[in-house]
Amino acid sequence: MTAALLDRLRAGLGADAVLTDPEVTAAYSRDQMPLAPAGTPLAVVLPADVAGVRAVVTACAAHGVPIVPRGAGSGLSGAANAIEGGVVLVTTRLDRIVEVDPANRLAVVQPGVVNLDLRAAVEKHGLFYPPDPSSYDWCTIGGNLATNAGGLCCVKYGVTADSVLGLEVVLADGEVLRTGRRTVKGVAGYDLTSLFVGSEGTLGIITEATLALRPLPEAPGTLVAAFGSAREAGDAVSRIVRAGLVPSLMEIMDATTIAAVEAYLGTDLGTGSGSGALLLCQSDAGGDAARRELASVERVCREAGAELTHATDDVAEGKLLLQARRVVHGALEAYGSCMTDDVCVPRTRIAELVAGCERISAEVGLRIAVVGHAGDGNMHPTVVYDAGAAGEFDRARRAFDAILDLGLSLGGTVTGEHGVGKFKQDWLAREIGPVGLRVHRELKRALDPGNLFNPGSMFTQPG
Amino acid sequence: MTAALLDRLRAGLGADAVLTDPEVTAAYSRDQMPLAPAGTPLAVVLPADVAGVRAVVTACAAHGVPIVPRGAGSGLSGAANAIEGGVVLVTTRLDRIVEVDPANRLAVVQPGVVNLDLRAAVEKHGLFYPPDPSSYDWCTIGGNLATNAGGLCCVKYGVTADSVLGLEVVLADGEVLRTGRRTVKGVAGYDLTSLFVGSEGTLGIITEATLALRPLPEAPGTLVAAFGSAREAGDAVSRIVRAGLVPSLMEIMDATTIAAVEAYLGTDLGTGSGSGALLLCQSDAGGDAARRELASVERVCREAGAELTHATDDVAEGKLLLQARRVVHGALEAYGSCMTDDVCVPRTRIAELVAGCERISAEVGLRIAVVGHAGDGNMHPTVVYDAGAAGEFDRARRAFDAILDLGLSLGGTVTGEHGVGKFKQDWLAREIGPVGLRVHRELKRALDPGNLFNPGSMFTQPG
Repeated sequence: MTAALLDRLRAGLGADAVLTDPEVTAAYSRDQMPLAPAGTPLAVVLPADVAGVRAVVTACAAHGVPIVPRGAGSGLSGAANAIEGGVVLVTTRLDRIVEVDPANRLAVVQPGVVNLDLRAAVEKHGLFYPPDPSSYDWCTIGGNLATNAGGLCCVKYGVTADSVLGLEVVLADGEVLRTGRRTVKGVAGYDLTSLFVGSEGTLGIITEATLALRPLPEAPGTLVAAFGSAREAGDAVSRIVRAGLVPSLMEIMDATTIAAVEAYLGTDLGTGSGSGALLLCQSDAGGDAARRELASVERVCREAGAELTHATDDVAEGKLLLQARRVVHGALEAYGSCMTDDVCVPRTRIAELVAGCERISAEVGLRIAVVGHAGDGNMHPTVVYDAGAAGEFDRARRAFDAILDLGLSLGGTVTGEHGVGKFKQDWLAREIGPVGLRVHRELKRALDPGNLFNPGSMFTQPG
Repeated sequence: MTAALLDRLRAGLGADAVLTDPEVTAAYSRDQMPLAPAGTPLAVVLPADVAGVRAVVTACAAHGVPIVPRGAGSGLSGAANAIEGGVVLVTTRLDRIVEVDPANRLAVVQPGVVNLDLRAAVEKHGLFYPPDPSSYDWCTIGGNLATNAGGLCCVKYGVTADSVLGLEVVLADGEVLRTGRRTVKGVAGYDLTSLFVGSEGTLGIITEATLALRPLPEAPGTLVAAFGSAREAGDAVSRIVRAGLVPSLMEIMDATTIAAVEAYLGTDLGTGSGSGALLLCQSDAGGDAARRELASVERVCREAGAELTHATDDVAEGKLLLQARRVVHGALEAYGSCMTDDVCVPRTRIAELVAGCERISAEVGLRIAVVGHAGDGNMHPTVVYDAGAAGEFDRARRAFDAILDLGLSLGGTVTGEHGVGKFKQDWLAREIGPVGLRVHRELKRALDPGNLFNPGSMFTQPG
């Protein structure tokens, strides 16, 4: 039975595109979320065109073997983790930038294109593809689409969904669906594009995307503001939002994060010792406009109690300042293993989230560092634990869950950008409630009646 | 049978909320699209709260009587037109602005709130609700959501969907679904919000919406550019897009439109006689930034061959200039009856669309005026005909269809912002193809198995 499926896959794709050696397939069985379960796949397949994807889908459907779509494997929810005995469909050979159309500000790409490669290709035309997850130099557009990936850009430019005009998708019966359009606007029928974006590989295989591009922004100016407490930094964020300011980047780091980064980099970040919280802001409005925008942000930070502020329009210095944010994960890993949470709260509740994480940290006796995209309330509290110490994993997991609980209680969501995957199914059910879950199941059943695509990921289908 | 349903509706809503007098219900049986069919409703109901909406839904479901949801009736697709023997559910009594939250830049509203009333309410907080369909002073937010309404703002601020964070929806079984969230970001589950926005009342009844607001922009500066031909104006649009300029408004009027407006207003629009096309642009970037932005647009227009340009940062003068655009419909109606098309094409194809409309005009022997949102390619060619003259309606309809055909052939869509409704079902089917239509039907069946909501609108459900 499985031999017949493998034969069919090899016949359809060529033998080199069907991997079955367990030592090889193991490399494709997990994404970057260590807490999610992963099975041993029957095979890993690497189709190079739409016909290949269709061949895999129809073969697996005929044999009742589930398919997990996978890009680079940079995900943080286990959505791309293999299912025991299933097929992992890797999209990295579908890696063509089909078209860049500067006069209509759009690009057409295959799912295996690396985010950075697309950014570079469109930059040559003075254009900008905003979504910038932290793995942008190796994650693929297909994975970005499947997870509706975010990044540092979101405060001004939105998430991946905001840059998608249309998709080509292989459905469960092997048919090819085209959603959306090449035009800026269009209301012909349901918004199928948005339904597939963020569906985490549970509804079909995206084989092409038409993406909206923006004019390349100006080189950014940068502002750092140091506060005595996270409460004041959170207050500054609320005031910035209320003042109608829209920086192109606004990141927050709490005291624990600052200390870790200072130890890691061997400097005091130039903010004086013992800062309670940092805000890092950028404006890409260009020249005077950027200077004025950052001056306004600076004034609001001062009014909210900032002890120290420093603004620069030197791009290199700005990059250096941003470095403090970019090394956070490495800095925390110097302390031990990390569980990175992904809650998004209303922007007025950031200070409460930080205070709550301090309380949870004290309760479980583990370090919790809070860092996040303050401009949109998407916070990544990170629980640090010693994987070798008895009971620490369990305590870390308890803290992790307590933070999700806290996020929900603050009117937030259990995932701002990482997704549900094979890890947060129970939390999704809790957030969306029984009616929401029922609707999810009905939609999944409508488009994938055989439960072929990534079954059990995001939510389970009963019976 | 119908008496029993009427009794149940009166018991649930109160007698004053159930209208059955045909002379009264006739006023609720049509929207603003005269070409779409409309039936005589069994009743028009006006629930005042969610419980009332649920009562209507469960009663109608029990009796197998279809429901057409309706806001103010300003729609242009017949989506809100009554179905023979069905119930029209009017949302205008659900008219509360539940909350404005300036620090999180959001508002929570019921569907019956008039667009202008929401704009005014949030403006007091220095905030801005962008979607501005031309009926903004009387259309409702619920209708805007159901049709994913656009407007003049879209070139910079997007369509209605871009301002929606979450919805409350009454489903076909009377259950209440909550979609989305109050946070800026969130990827917990499928994007149900986007599925309901633009679904034209075919999937459920929206009873509340959480809307994202923006900082109130600066008072706009305005630029008019007159061209010898639509080809040059279209070329200017392409160059503006390619130059990375994003005006807050960019409208185009062709020679036929200009002549109609000049006759109607009794002035020559100050652009010299015989202009082939006008571009009207605004920048709301404020002060120097707006002046610089408009100066760049002006330069590009000159390079594209503009014969005359005029820029002003006087707000009153800008309004006056925009008046030429706002009176287009009235000006054309002075010639006869109008069929207003709604195609959206890639922005590089605008000139071809105008040229094609000239050709179609000559073929059918009727005046066709082209006006539209040039910044996003959403064009409204309007066919003028004499409703009393034998054969003119049929020729107008032929021209209308030829324009849709042309729009599709230019890589566009058959509706940029008006919707499909009870009028363009065949065109939707043609645009999305058999696989797209099948998926629409499957999703509709999943959420509305009894075909309760607006059956036959947008597409038909077989069997």
